[in-house]
Amino acid sequence: MGKNENPKLHNNNNIKKHVINGIDDLNNKVWDKVLTCITWMRPSWRLHLWHYKWALENWLKLQENPNIKNNFLIADYQVLWDHLWDTDKLRASVIDMVIDWLAVWLDPQKSNFIIQSYVPEFAELFNLLTMFTPYSVAMNNPTLKDEIKKIENRQELEKNWISLWFINYPVSQVADIMLPYWEIVPVWEDQIPHIELSRKVIKKVNTMYGTNFPLPLAMISEISRLVWTDWNDKMSKSLWNTIYLTATLKEIKDWVNSMYTDPWKISIKSPWNIENHVVFKYLDIFYNDKDHIEELKKRYIEGWENSVWDWELKKILVEVLENLISPIREKREYYKQNMDLVISSIEEWSENMREIWQKLLKELKGKMGILDYWKEFK
Amino acid sequence: MGKNENPKLHNNNNIKKHVINGIDDLNNKVWDKVLTCITWMRPSWRLHLWHYKWALENWLKLQENPNIKNNFLIADYQVLWDHLWDTDKLRASVIDMVIDWLAVWLDPQKSNFIIQSYVPEFAELFNLLTMFTPYSVAMNNPTLKDEIKKIENRQELEKNWISLWFINYPVSQVADIMLPYWEIVPVWEDQIPHIELSRKVIKKVNTMYGTNFPLPLAMISEISRLVWTDWNDKMSKSLWNTIYLTATLKEIKDWVNSMYTDPWKISIKSPWNIENHVVFKYLDIFYNDKDHIEELKKRYIEGWENSVWDWELKKILVEVLENLISPIREKREYYKQNMDLVISSIEEWSENMREIWQKLLKELKGKMGILDYWKEFK
Repeated sequence: MGKNENPKLHNNNNIKKHVINGIDDLNNKVWDKVLTCITWMRPSWRLHLWHYKWALENWLKLQENPNIKNNFLIADYQVLWDHLWDTDKLRASVIDMVIDWLAVWLDPQKSNFIIQSYVPEFAELFNLLTMFTPYSVAMNNPTLKDEIKKIENRQELEKNWISLWFINYPVSQVADIMLPYWEIVPVWEDQIPHIELSRKVIKKVNTMYGTNFPLPLAMISEISRLVWTDWNDKMSKSLWNTIYLTATLKEIKDWVNSMYTDPWKISIKSPWNIENHVVFKYLDIFYNDKDHIEELKKRYIEGWENSVWDWELKKILVEVLENLISPIREKREYYKQNMDLVISSIEEWSENMREIWQKLLKELKGKMGILDYWKEFK
Repeated sequence: MGKNENPKLHNNNNIKKHVINGIDDLNNKVWDKVLTCITWMRPSWRLHLWHYKWALENWLKLQENPNIKNNFLIADYQVLWDHLWDTDKLRASVIDMVIDWLAVWLDPQKSNFIIQSYVPEFAELFNLLTMFTPYSVAMNNPTLKDEIKKIENRQELEKNWISLWFINYPVSQVADIMLPYWEIVPVWEDQIPHIELSRKVIKKVNTMYGTNFPLPLAMISEISRLVWTDWNDKMSKSLWNTIYLTATLKEIKDWVNSMYTDPWKISIKSPWNIENHVVFKYLDIFYNDKDHIEELKKRYIEGWENSVWDWELKKILVEVLENLISPIREKREYYKQNMDLVISSIEEWSENMREIWQKLLKELKGKMGILDYWKEFK
């Protein structure tokens, strides 16, 4: 199999638009080789419950799959453009994020942690790739258009907020993906246009210079799909008012106790409506005992003697979240005290990766015919 | 004086729009320090007479000025975007151009020759600078607009020819200028908007991070100004049909003999019109004996016994051009046989420069606060 083809599925159905449907789908499939996978996170704020549920939980599953070599990119440039005035905050976010990653059991011995700004090769390749990207194609990216519109609607900002970097960033992502031969890219649904762009640009390079850069596949997680299609529009904004992975038990309690339940509740005996019941929404997602949830819902809706109070539900949710967060909290404290244990391995990895990437980039430039002009002199 | 101010002129009149009016103006002024100067040339074709007259002759004057440290950039990326399919041609052009530079007495011992694609630091800085450049400002650059229009009018091409690189290239020039602290940038009149963009972006960086990158001054040469304002529109297209600096004596003769003179000439005795007389135009530019030219013109216009034949004028022009080109031709042959004499010094310079630039870029990233996140851990 040529390296530039998609990694071949032995049961090769189910690939639509170069998308893999979720982590379980990926794990269940039998691939004929070890796949490389790149995922990035923008260090723009402290990680909270949703980061865990939407991303990190999947990353952990990826990390445990022996057929996948994982690379987790700290995409600091994707935040920097909007934080030129407060890079101190960015620095703090990078550090917080790395500690959170470690605290949820991401392991730099098993996976590669990479800081984007530490790899100048990305910038060099990005600069080259802009030559392969027609301006009209770059500007026709539906996600980019949406994002530009959103930024322009932020009332406090002037038109000048859209920087040239922002127009370029989908192509800079192509460089992040292409250079180290990544094959699987877990993304949000809205990032699919960027993956399609990557495939186009990489295909062009392969065709022109006989290179073998793989065409990446997007992997959409189930939960991301759910969020993207349903929640974003329909669910209460209060759902987004979430808590950090660093929350104390008291913070969890205060937060859960403030949750919206059913505005029409009058007494324990009324039959209640759970359609917008935030506590149940959270239990659905974070509580693993699905039978218990069904039983609670049934009793809650029916009302009368057998019903449950909101405070009972909230107590269960507090327990569920405390069980999730307390080990993270502890591990976080541990790493805060023992950062030297991980720094060296991360630094080492960054250097190793850079050496590999320098070699790859040199090969590409060689095939393009823009390396070592001097040789012709000799 | 702060490094980020303009180099101060002791007689500081005559600076309009951050422009210096010609090489003599620059040379005649007394500056209070040695200035650094960057000039680039696109290796897109073999060098011809106009390259010599419009650029290289000035570069030689710059090189002889002890108060100017010169850097000559081989801007291969500025050609590559349009030659992805034929990089062999680009390679050949780079080599031809370097040999031509040497042949006209540019000296890598006195000045720095730099190949753009050999300096990844430029790409890294360029990527950062796009964050400081509002998209609206980038797209409002009049020269960029003109160039886009010109490319779109090239009938054989589709709209997709405008690459994202092309939209970015003025900012990539800012990186070329900013990183090594260049102060003087000899340019064509049409490049002034790029220099103004450079000043804006560099000023923003200096203001935000307390850096001292100098704000560059554009230097417009007299001949460039002449060409830009008069020739481009008014003069015969045949002027552009020029000869290479490698021309043999026979090629010079053939070319001069084919030159347009006066279509109304009937006999040697007629009074003739020299308005569109190409031979005189060339003599005006390349023949140093101005008195002799005046005398020839007078006789030519008056006609009758005292007049001159076109062939006599052409003979003079052939001599003038052969005097100019023959030493270049010889030196070119010499360097073609002895490239090893210069390769090592150019390679060495590229490496030296890269070390300096890496240091500068690291300093900038340090001041921006995006370097060595790990330090915070320790």
